[in-house]
Amino acid sequence: MKPKINRKDFSELRIVMDKGEGEMEEKKEIKIGLLGLGTVGVGVAKIIEDHQEDLQKQTGNPIKIEKVLVQDLEKRREWPGDPERITNDVWEILNNEEIDVIIEVMGNIYPTFEYLMHALSQGKHIVTANKDLIALHGPELLAQASKYQCDLFYEASVAGGIPIIRALVEGFASDRITKLVGIVNGTTNYILSKMSEEGLPFDEMLRKAQELGYAEADPTNDIEGLDAARKMAILSNLAFHMDVSIHDVEVKGITSVKKEDIEFGKQLGYEIKLLGVANVNENGIEISVQPTMVNHNHQLAKINGVFNAVYVYGEAVGETMFYGPGAGQLPTATAVVSDLVTVIKQMNLGVNGRGVVAPYRKKSLKSDELKISRYFIRLSVSDQVGVLAKITQVLAEEEISIQEVLQMSGEEKKKAQLIITTHATSKAQLTKFINKLNQLAVVDKINNIFPIEGEEIA
Amino acid sequence: MKPKINRKDFSELRIVMDKGEGEMEEKKEIKIGLLGLGTVGVGVAKIIEDHQEDLQKQTGNPIKIEKVLVQDLEKRREWPGDPERITNDVWEILNNEEIDVIIEVMGNIYPTFEYLMHALSQGKHIVTANKDLIALHGPELLAQASKYQCDLFYEASVAGGIPIIRALVEGFASDRITKLVGIVNGTTNYILSKMSEEGLPFDEMLRKAQELGYAEADPTNDIEGLDAARKMAILSNLAFHMDVSIHDVEVKGITSVKKEDIEFGKQLGYEIKLLGVANVNENGIEISVQPTMVNHNHQLAKINGVFNAVYVYGEAVGETMFYGPGAGQLPTATAVVSDLVTVIKQMNLGVNGRGVVAPYRKKSLKSDELKISRYFIRLSVSDQVGVLAKITQVLAEEEISIQEVLQMSGEEKKKAQLIITTHATSKAQLTKFINKLNQLAVVDKINNIFPIEGEEIA
Repeated sequence: MKPKINRKDFSELRIVMDKGEGEMEEKKEIKIGLLGLGTVGVGVAKIIEDHQEDLQKQTGNPIKIEKVLVQDLEKRREWPGDPERITNDVWEILNNEEIDVIIEVMGNIYPTFEYLMHALSQGKHIVTANKDLIALHGPELLAQASKYQCDLFYEASVAGGIPIIRALVEGFASDRITKLVGIVNGTTNYILSKMSEEGLPFDEMLRKAQELGYAEADPTNDIEGLDAARKMAILSNLAFHMDVSIHDVEVKGITSVKKEDIEFGKQLGYEIKLLGVANVNENGIEISVQPTMVNHNHQLAKINGVFNAVYVYGEAVGETMFYGPGAGQLPTATAVVSDLVTVIKQMNLGVNGRGVVAPYRKKSLKSDELKISRYFIRLSVSDQVGVLAKITQVLAEEEISIQEVLQMSGEEKKKAQLIITTHATSKAQLTKFINKLNQLAVVDKINNIFPIEGEEIA
Repeated sequence: MKPKINRKDFSELRIVMDKGEGEMEEKKEIKIGLLGLGTVGVGVAKIIEDHQEDLQKQTGNPIKIEKVLVQDLEKRREWPGDPERITNDVWEILNNEEIDVIIEVMGNIYPTFEYLMHALSQGKHIVTANKDLIALHGPELLAQASKYQCDLFYEASVAGGIPIIRALVEGFASDRITKLVGIVNGTTNYILSKMSEEGLPFDEMLRKAQELGYAEADPTNDIEGLDAARKMAILSNLAFHMDVSIHDVEVKGITSVKKEDIEFGKQLGYEIKLLGVANVNENGIEISVQPTMVNHNHQLAKINGVFNAVYVYGEAVGETMFYGPGAGQLPTATAVVSDLVTVIKQMNLGVNGRGVVAPYRKKSLKSDELKISRYFIRLSVSDQVGVLAKITQVLAEEEISIQEVLQMSGEEKKKAQLIITTHATSKAQLTKFINKLNQLAVVDKINNIFPIEGEEIA
């Protein structure tokens, strides 16, 4: 049984609470509108119910999910509360004066964006797990939140249960972050880990991941790197204090990764991971998501399955790393409800929507001349004398220096596989080299090119 | 050149800032009293100087170190500011009405405690890196801070540059943390890592660490595990919401770790680490710091040198890990100044000293019957037939089941080394077993006993 609550105005309540030594305090019940009752929504409801007592100790307030939006009222759901609180009419929630906080776990960009803009205009605070929405419309939503003195938090949108956004915004507030390197998509990491362990091709592993529920029926967002790119845009924005958008992220998915890349990579001491890399220096920023050869001694090479890990490099702090479950019902829900705790604490202090630091550095993107990396290049070449001499001559012309070369007989007759790893080179140099290679008769095909990470930074 | 500042009352200022769209804002300069100008103190001064512009973008306020306390005015120091701002009279700082925030990096428990209690009574906010003080007098200091509506932050006191306290307090606010496992002392981790890599004995590695400045002239606090115990007490308090004190931590240092333990450990697949382990269940809490055999596949086995790592397990979030530099001038200073940023943001909002959650769960310590672990036991025994049978009989009597036994010829004639690893057993059972072993004539000496970690949790 819930205790009977006398609702009070907040300013009154604060006085009661301040005076409250020994006295019974009267606490406003915080009413939540939950948009979406999928996996994460059910997790949020569970945590709010199961941890009610702890949450109340931390915030001072009871928390109630007042209304839940679902698409289809007929579908049976794992909803622990009163069925009358379920609705399929979003306006019953958005215009409900009783509701203090909207928790948005319905996904999609539209009409979710309009819903949240409206909710903010009604003075409702927002907690969301929606990376697509934040990556695309974060600035407008934050401006709207600021206008109506509302909170807008989105810790759950990146790296599930890892409190990486808090670390960037508060933990490293005094430092200058220079680089982020992360595995931020569990689906692709699961597929690549399993391809590496079991030697299976991409298509087969994707099917397996779909069967296990690790990949969606339409896996495009994950396997094409878009999900990871959105997360890297969100993190880069906060780390570098620049207005980074998804369009600033160079993206390449994992569909082109072949068994041969994994095998040859291993022979040279690498594991392939879909890495997000963002760095900034006096020349500007550079953000990418792409399959990358990671030195097998580096911790990132050992992050397997659906786990996420983010390295953060700061001028003062040096190297730090955050690791944990990147998705999943309860890890994601715990990030959502921790944001809710912050909203409620701020409600009690009357400071919602304040103290948010908007991006204050001018964004400039590095030119290809200033993007420096090492590369792993896999070619099919004619299996004849003098091939290597021709290719190394082109490398010399472009002033690209070689770290290692590995030549293997190909599956086809008279063809060989050639793997070249380079020392640090600019992307502009690489492009020129590739163009010249394409003109060499002895080069049959440029199969794949991957950057290499994890040696300088191991 | 600093701009000329018109000092204003804060409530006025907030109005100016709220109205301030487009207008020039007038910002109060935040004045710091810095207690201590050792390694970390100099680091704090450097970061406040070098990152002044960024800090101002984040807080809205210029920051100035108004006064610095040193012991000896004659000693030359790396102080970038005006030499007139250095004093050896603490009261010039504590009673200085201009000073808003005290940054305490002088160390020691007394008289530092009295200084900070007085500073709080004068309405000054505190940021400290002093784990000894927080572990011993945290509750009194927090009560004083609350009484005078002041902030008291201490992120730098645990795990240097890793924002682990923020993660526990905010990131996992909605979860129930069940276990912490950490390497939180860099000095001992450096010594044990090097003993393992180079096969050198403890005394020699300690001397090396002292030469390199990784260990102090009096290394007791580190090598006896006291430093790690204080940090585990601080983390456990925040993670479990219980009033944990240093006296609740079972502590064993690394001085008894022998080359043989490291060698035999390796043969069975373990690395020795000084681990802090804290866990809670319905039977109570259990917190220890002791040399521990860690499965070599577990990430903690691979944390070498002066790095720290803390695993946090939550009911909802599952396994997460935080890794970074555990000490050092700039990593520690960045944690201090990030706390300062929070203090200043809260000053601007007028909410200092509020929203701190005091421990709300009743502390109960587990009895030895309920402390469950696996163990690694190294014995010297007579090298004769039937020894193992006698020992395994005693194990059976105490219902302790064996995982592995390794017998090696000892250095002395007619003696053998026997290593036993057990399955999960209670500490009470282990004690009874050890008492019985001591009575067996064939047992020459019980050399060492270590718990085993990192197999269930890998």
